[in-house]
Amino acid sequence: MPETVTIACCQTVPDVERPEASAQNARDALRAAVASGARVVVLPELSNSGYIFRSAEEARAAAVPAAGELLRGWAQEAAVGDAVVIGGFCELGPDGRVYNSAAVVDREGVRAVYRKLHLWNDEASWFTPGKAPAPVVETRVGRIGVAVCYDLEFPELTRGLALAGAELLALPMNWPREVDATVQEPVPHLLARATAYHSKVYVAVCDRGGEERGVGFQGASAIVDPAGRMLAAAHPGAAAETLLAAGVIESARDKRVGPRNDAFADRRAEHYSTNLSIAAGRADPPAEPRVITT
Amino acid sequence: MPETVTIACCQTVPDVERPEASAQNARDALRAAVASGARVVVLPELSNSGYIFRSAEEARAAAVPAAGELLRGWAQEAAVGDAVVIGGFCELGPDGRVYNSAAVVDREGVRAVYRKLHLWNDEASWFTPGKAPAPVVETRVGRIGVAVCYDLEFPELTRGLALAGAELLALPMNWPREVDATVQEPVPHLLARATAYHSKVYVAVCDRGGEERGVGFQGASAIVDPAGRMLAAAHPGAAAETLLAAGVIESARDKRVGPRNDAFADRRAEHYSTNLSIAAGRADPPAEPRVITT
Repeated sequence: MPETVTIACCQTVPDVERPEASAQNARDALRAAVASGARVVVLPELSNSGYIFRSAEEARAAAVPAAGELLRGWAQEAAVGDAVVIGGFCELGPDGRVYNSAAVVDREGVRAVYRKLHLWNDEASWFTPGKAPAPVVETRVGRIGVAVCYDLEFPELTRGLALAGAELLALPMNWPREVDATVQEPVPHLLARATAYHSKVYVAVCDRGGEERGVGFQGASAIVDPAGRMLAAAHPGAAAETLLAAGVIESARDKRVGPRNDAFADRRAEHYSTNLSIAAGRADPPAEPRVITT
Repeated sequence: MPETVTIACCQTVPDVERPEASAQNARDALRAAVASGARVVVLPELSNSGYIFRSAEEARAAAVPAAGELLRGWAQEAAVGDAVVIGGFCELGPDGRVYNSAAVVDREGVRAVYRKLHLWNDEASWFTPGKAPAPVVETRVGRIGVAVCYDLEFPELTRGLALAGAELLALPMNWPREVDATVQEPVPHLLARATAYHSKVYVAVCDRGGEERGVGFQGASAIVDPAGRMLAAAHPGAAAETLLAAGVIESARDKRVGPRNDAFADRRAEHYSTNLSIAAGRADPPAEPRVITT
């Protein structure tokens, strides 16, 4: 029987000037979520460091190795409830570079480290971009695809995770408040709902709240089901808040829509004329658009 | 100077038992939109036939050739205001097959015919699926990408149109009312907004309204700008309604987001490990998901 599990997003308020306290707050929220019965717990992007760095040196000073205390602590908390943690952290890589990373951790330790492929704004000044695809990790509660924040704006990446088998997409994020007040819904909510609907997967986006050095964050955490329905969303304006929602993650293997259709089997891949990945040997869209000009 | 133009969606109420009246209603709405100054006019899917067929014979009886009176009529109306029409019609192909098609027509005549790639539900009983990619058509008001209804559920297709140069995606549709009352927003609105936001393109979805043989349609026409903002949406429950919105279609060539980012230039195509098109020689997702099981 497919199992109903509790999915949690622990929206915290990191403080770039107090990285140790930031990490402790995230760990405390993780512990509480596991105590509430959560089997999947998503933490924000850069949950151990804060976001608004002033220099590469400041980011480096906050960076920690994947094989260190931080993720060992997550594994200890996860073990209490046999949970899986997907959390963002400021990583000092084995190569000495600093990455904006997300780790998948369970009672056995670190299962995967993903380094953010698409860097937003000043992140490019502090972080080295990832050089490997976003992973899908087989866990005891289902297959979890991992990405970080701005990655959600690239449908090739999220669609690829779903086609590779992910049943739940977990995205740590730090989403700055929209400057454009005419936007009708937090963008993370819009994109999470559409991404879930398109690929019939759960999507859990764990944002941060609060302000940092004058920059406000949305606090737009959300958990969405494979029909694109919002199961839980952070209250507008909330700083720290933990969302809990029940889901049958394995149910996302069923891609049927209506009596005769299937979101994946219906794909007409041979007619998607623009190749969206490098596999064909051309990474970028054609310089000249494919247009009919007769 | 980029030109501000009026985009129209003519939401009509076709009647499968009165195909001639259905076609006339669509043409009347097109004429009125052009008279209102519209330079781009989108008509519903199967605007000349209605949707709820009882048999393949009934669909065939309503089908007309692209090189016939129907599209000549659209071209005549378009010529009055130098407009471009993107409309759905039940097509009798040169090969004798019946297609669920969309035509792009301007004062010069038929510029492109697209045959729907993804057939929904019983459509597969009446129509032959398309065998060619969705097109991008260079017009006097910008580059228009064309798809039909359920195609919007395949992000590979819409992303591909945008990467191929489309600045406006125009989708004729006939979207049945959701059975699931817990859905929080008409699905066409959700997907149109997310698709526009992802690729920084205009999206115009022209739905039908009313009921037919016991099936209700959403009447969820909408025009969305490249920031994902709803510029115009049909009133809930409206049957026939024409939407008008002003847009600078060429502005969608600018993919910049924020001071240092660009929705297209930021793509890390070499790391989208699942190829979404056939170009690599494998059309389908791998049978075994790419999972980390360490």
